[in-house]
Amino acid sequence: MRAVDVIKKKRDGGELTPAEIDAFVAAAAGGGWPDYQLSALLMAICCRGMTPTETARLTRAMADSGRRVDLSDIPGPKVDKHSTGGVGDKTSLILGPLAAACGVKVPMMSGRGLGHTGGTLDKLEAIPGFRVNLSIDEFRAAVRDVGIGMIGQTADVAPADKKLYALRDVTGTVESIPLITASIMSKKLAEGIDALVLDVKVGRGAFMKTLPEARALAESLVTVGRANGLKVEAVLTNMDAPLGRAVGHANEVWESIETLKGNGPKDLEDLSVHLAARMVRLGGLADTLEAAEAKVRAAIADGSALAVFRRMVERQGGDPLVVDEPQPLFSGTQGTTVGEWRGAYVATVDAEAVGRAVAALGGGRATVADQIDPGVGVRLAAKPGEVGRAKQFEVDYRDAASLLAARDILESAVSFADSKPAQQPLILDVIA
Amino acid sequence: MRAVDVIKKKRDGGELTPAEIDAFVAAAAGGGWPDYQLSALLMAICCRGMTPTETARLTRAMADSGRRVDLSDIPGPKVDKHSTGGVGDKTSLILGPLAAACGVKVPMMSGRGLGHTGGTLDKLEAIPGFRVNLSIDEFRAAVRDVGIGMIGQTADVAPADKKLYALRDVTGTVESIPLITASIMSKKLAEGIDALVLDVKVGRGAFMKTLPEARALAESLVTVGRANGLKVEAVLTNMDAPLGRAVGHANEVWESIETLKGNGPKDLEDLSVHLAARMVRLGGLADTLEAAEAKVRAAIADGSALAVFRRMVERQGGDPLVVDEPQPLFSGTQGTTVGEWRGAYVATVDAEAVGRAVAALGGGRATVADQIDPGVGVRLAAKPGEVGRAKQFEVDYRDAASLLAARDILESAVSFADSKPAQQPLILDVIA
Repeated sequence: MRAVDVIKKKRDGGELTPAEIDAFVAAAAGGGWPDYQLSALLMAICCRGMTPTETARLTRAMADSGRRVDLSDIPGPKVDKHSTGGVGDKTSLILGPLAAACGVKVPMMSGRGLGHTGGTLDKLEAIPGFRVNLSIDEFRAAVRDVGIGMIGQTADVAPADKKLYALRDVTGTVESIPLITASIMSKKLAEGIDALVLDVKVGRGAFMKTLPEARALAESLVTVGRANGLKVEAVLTNMDAPLGRAVGHANEVWESIETLKGNGPKDLEDLSVHLAARMVRLGGLADTLEAAEAKVRAAIADGSALAVFRRMVERQGGDPLVVDEPQPLFSGTQGTTVGEWRGAYVATVDAEAVGRAVAALGGGRATVADQIDPGVGVRLAAKPGEVGRAKQFEVDYRDAASLLAARDILESAVSFADSKPAQQPLILDVIA
Repeated sequence: MRAVDVIKKKRDGGELTPAEIDAFVAAAAGGGWPDYQLSALLMAICCRGMTPTETARLTRAMADSGRRVDLSDIPGPKVDKHSTGGVGDKTSLILGPLAAACGVKVPMMSGRGLGHTGGTLDKLEAIPGFRVNLSIDEFRAAVRDVGIGMIGQTADVAPADKKLYALRDVTGTVESIPLITASIMSKKLAEGIDALVLDVKVGRGAFMKTLPEARALAESLVTVGRANGLKVEAVLTNMDAPLGRAVGHANEVWESIETLKGNGPKDLEDLSVHLAARMVRLGGLADTLEAAEAKVRAAIADGSALAVFRRMVERQGGDPLVVDEPQPLFSGTQGTTVGEWRGAYVATVDAEAVGRAVAALGGGRATVADQIDPGVGVRLAAKPGEVGRAKQFEVDYRDAASLLAARDILESAVSFADSKPAQQPLILDVIA
């Protein structure tokens, strides 16, 4: 099979055979095609699309390009959650312990932040000592003993995805539903899970700006996951404004801990509980969503979820003191407030702008090689629909120049209203 | 300007600005973008197309990426012809001397054959000693003194096209009218000509298999040539069957010489005369096509075109004896005949199959690096519409294995009819 013939077939809108897809993925993982042929086929897929059958095969081949974790000897349902990424989205840190406290095994492989969105691994590393680079054996043991492990994608998981993702980033081929689907779902297949809850973000702080786009991605993810033997549900949620009040790594860890203690912002608690309840029900540990939600809320009320979080931090080498006391998270940063109030109510807070402001403070990456400062961040004084405070934002910063840059972005990120604005629902749609 | 932003714009169907096109071409010529970005943009252009304005700019930028030959100090109109390539298409060797004998200056930069089609440079090199690698100064002097020079594209002409053509060949991005247009016309613009006649081939031996496809290419070539200041006309001609009777390099040189002597096959002579007449009229040396044709036919009758051919061979280091005597062209090959007759008339001769047969004999290239054997080839005993001969083909071969391979192809290349089949016209359409 010649690479150029596979490329031409897709260029002309043809449906690739399983053998053609497997050859492409093997070449991506093993170096059999030069980069210029891989990128030509990626662009042809961007322009011509893929059928669900092709996308499912691409996903499977990418999962099979490396090691698939075997968790079959660990009792209990293995369920994960994946979010397509937003601003202030720290639900993984909350719902993972919630689901684990209810008996779900949560083997979570996460990614790092890029651009204006944060990544779960970066947030965890704001906890002094926390190791996200467990070996697969350590990971399996953590899932078995603690009920949850949270690590990065190891080098031997889905190597074809690593190669293709790096190439897509520099060849304008990121924005393709089949390619996004295969990238996300191949890594999830490799985790060894039975079921997956997807949180597909929609809005100005999300990758998908409109509900139809987000629904198309959600449907593709669900279809491909099910075609590869997973139980999958997707929730489409609003990402016009940041989730919760805290954006920035240390900030978000602390807000997650507060939420596990029952003191979190309502939107963050509600979404974390909803997604965790779906994990519990998909895992067969409750018959209805209502019953699952009751279990999950009980795991907040009785402190069992917070206890799982503490054990996870200890097991992965982190300082468990952060559960009681935020100080170790923020060492060395200074605090101030920015943004004048200009109306009775907050109408909108632009999530993308807040994300960029945190990046300007040093808490984001322009390229995957950049270092981030976990201590810097922003807290919203008021969320959309709330009444005014003295200032719009509290800011944790490390130097004055980055503070000024962030302030310029933040001051135009909020709009105001004189009467209480109508609130959009957080959950826009469900595919279950 | 970031490469990835230009790529995304075209991926989404946008129209690139002159600055964006110039940046792409500069990167292709100078190495500013990695190959995987060039190929991603090539595929996006394949899938999304280009407007005539974009294609004209791409063409100009590619011409300007290297040296443009300046022939302005040579008196007389500078006119060239370009064919999109067929089987047995040796008109360049005939119409070049014909036009030059009528006073046109013919600065012809040609290419080599690939796949089942032959190239003018390879045919000229069948003449012992013939040098197609004249320097630009030698080329200018030949055009000035002889009226014609026939060379290959020098390294400093349109380097962006060289880079992109090599990449297109291996990334499935050859079949794109804007990219084909820019590749052809950038080299023609760089020749320093005033006018150009295009022979766009249509049919089973051509790149374009249908008249609508060929017309779209012809219109793009004419539009882009005119947008860049050239006088351009295009003739769409049938390439279902080989042109003339001879296919193979030495073979075609000898048939060209015979045609210049007035002994050529009618289709080859008629098309060569027609195209040369268009060159003469476009060059302002005749007021009407009829007057131009009369001049061109006179140049056959009085031997002046043959004399130009002889002087060209001498000037470019070739053995002028070949004009009188075919022997030096064929040294070392053996002759035989193949193909049983199976009806009263020949109905069709598949040009593509004949081209493949010659390639199987050693007279074609699978890749640009392959060597070819100029002496091998095929002559048609009868063309479509003609009555039967003892065998279908005369074959010049060098070894028995290649003869067997060629015979298998040739024996299924001809179809027969019991009554005289209707003949398709050679000239299908004209854009003038």
